[in-house]
Amino acid sequence: MEQNDFGKERKYLMDLMKNSDRFYIEFGRIDDDAFSGGSIPKKYKELTMVTASIVSKCKECIEYHIKECLSAKSSKKEIIEAIKMGMMASGSVSYPYVRYSFKVLKEQKII
Amino acid sequence: MEQNDFGKERKYLMDLMKNSDRFYIEFGRIDDDAFSGGSIPKKYKELTMVTASIVSKCKECIEYHIKECLSAKSSKKEIIEAIKMGMMASGSVSYPYVRYSFKVLKEQKII
Amino acid sequence: MEQNDFGKERKYLMDLMKNSDRFYIEFGRIDDDAFSGGSIPKKYKELTMVTASIVSKCKECIEYHIKECLSAKSSKKEIIEAIKMGMMASGSVSYPYVRYSFKVLKEQKII
Amino acid sequence: MEQNDFGKERKYLMDLMKNSDRFYIEFGRIDDDAFSGGSIPKKYKELTMVTASIVSKCKECIEYHIKECLSAKSSKKEIIEAIKMGMMASGSVSYPYVRYSFKVLKEQKII
Amino acid sequence: MEQNDFGKERKYLMDLMKNSDRFYIEFGRIDDDAFSGGSIPKKYKELTMVTASIVSKCKECIEYHIKECLSAKSSKKEIIEAIKMGMMASGSVSYPYVRYSFKVLKEQKII
Amino acid sequence: MEQNDFGKERKYLMDLMKNSDRFYIEFGRIDDDAFSGGSIPKKYKELTMVTASIVSKCKECIEYHIKECLSAKSSKKEIIEAIKMGMMASGSVSYPYVRYSFKVLKEQKII
Repeated sequence: MEQNDFGKERKYLMDLMKNSDRFYIEFGRIDDDAFSGGSIPKKYKELTMVTASIVSKCKECIEYHIKECLSAKSSKKEIIEAIKMGMMASGSVSYPYVRYSFKVLKEQKII
Repeated sequence: MEQNDFGKERKYLMDLMKNSDRFYIEFGRIDDDAFSGGSIPKKYKELTMVTASIVSKCKECIEYHIKECLSAKSSKKEIIEAIKMGMMASGSVSYPYVRYSFKVLKEQKII
Repeated sequence: MEQNDFGKERKYLMDLMKNSDRFYIEFGRIDDDAFSGGSIPKKYKELTMVTASIVSKCKECIEYHIKECLSAKSSKKEIIEAIKMGMMASGSVSYPYVRYSFKVLKEQKII
Repeated sequence: MEQNDFGKERKYLMDLMKNSDRFYIEFGRIDDDAFSGGSIPKKYKELTMVTASIVSKCKECIEYHIKECLSAKSSKKEIIEAIKMGMMASGSVSYPYVRYSFKVLKEQKII
Repeated sequence: MEQNDFGKERKYLMDLMKNSDRFYIEFGRIDDDAFSGGSIPKKYKELTMVTASIVSKCKECIEYHIKECLSAKSSKKEIIEAIKMGMMASGSVSYPYVRYSFKVLKEQKII
Repeated sequence: MEQNDFGKERKYLMDLMKNSDRFYIEFGRIDDDAFSGGSIPKKYKELTMVTASIVSKCKECIEYHIKECLSAKSSKKEIIEAIKMGMMASGSVSYPYVRYSFKVLKEQKII
């Protein structure tokens, strides 16, 4: 995963997207709006996205949202519960994604 | 949707399943375990499942979890935010499922 | 589900498709080839498709393949196991599709 | 499908959404922007969405985009080709969605 | 793929999961139950899971279940048929997963 | 991505598939037929497949179809619009696939 490179490439590609078409700036703005602010605290929004990322079978999304959970002060137990909900909802084909979630937790020194 | 019939058929079919194989009883038990108890309050677990149901494009799941949200005392604003996260995560092909969510909210006299 | 109407409309639409473009005839031919003949007995191919139909969340596919299982002399226990594999593989968001499978089994007087 | 009722309910629910949260207005705006204007002619954008709706297994989307194709002066042959690409891309589990597409074409008196 | 490392990391992560929450032990237990024992022979259950893994677009699942097929004495022809059913069911977007299946067969010296 | 190796392995595996079962030759033939010829120009068919590949979350498909777009003389603006439609249709869980699309565009020296 090599953290910094992952973050750097991500940013580089996001900049390419935004420079290519205003659409990506506006998409990003309503995306931020949906996942911040409002009545549901940020912490629970990010936990929700961990569950949704497992259901969607998206490793990059899992990694991103686990880190966002940590920034939003989610506890180890809460993150593990969010992963569990994702696994229960999407069944044994999500095993590789659940294992990946635990790999991220280990790399982040949470477990 | 005809509430009572929906609930009655659901229960009838769940009973058929459980009588056919112990597996369905055990699956149901760990499913209950994943979505109750633990560190994340029930209310937020159910809101998460509204988001995940839209991502999964499952109308029956949407209806079920919106009702569970209401039982768990989620506010109108919180449910609408959970729907919004589902729509943002899964894009315009989820429009029919978002519209269905609002139909359920209307029928439940929440909006 | 109204059996006969379901079968009649299906046939009517398949005919429209085949008349519109030879492609649908050829697609149908290799589709038949993939699900018949070969080394895996027809019965197990149809049981496989019950599992795959639940994983794919497709009610019409579930109904079609359960009936094909019955034509191919699958037992009640085998069909229930194929449904169980589908549920285990795809998790609790497949509940509505598993319930639907049992509804078809009931209508077919298998349970 | 009952055309007018379908359209009326759709509009009613869209209005509920937009009144509940500005987000739905902004989402709708960038959605319109993505599917109109630009370098790819509207006609081809709508044909693309027919293909994508079959891949996404969304009946309401199929119906909506076939009608948009007709408004954008797509020919019968082009729509049938867009359906064919969707079927080829997503395989035999998309049969019910392809049949549904032909049902819509029939109801629209295109075939 | 580096067999041994793949197996070792897999086991390491599974142990982390099971130590974090009893849930993963119970999930694993009903998962084993669904895919072993019962009326459908183990061999056909594993062939079914090859098909379902292609439909689910999960490379790790494909690799795992092809190896399980081999342990359960499936023949080369049977495995190739299971892959074919997966491709037919899920269409040309599954090409990369079918190619990956053949890569695993080659590495396992089956073809 | 290492272009040539990607292309070489792809071809090697496709040959293995075709040698194992005539099915893969016939599947390939109707696949070619669906995506070439007909009323919709090749260029627009390939742009459609870029959109569908993002909706299907398939990186190898994205890379393949962007290259096919270039062979079919699609402009930079058209490809970026096809990517945008895919992102709008499938929401923020498709971010990694959109970023990947831009990575391919960069490697192809289109942006």
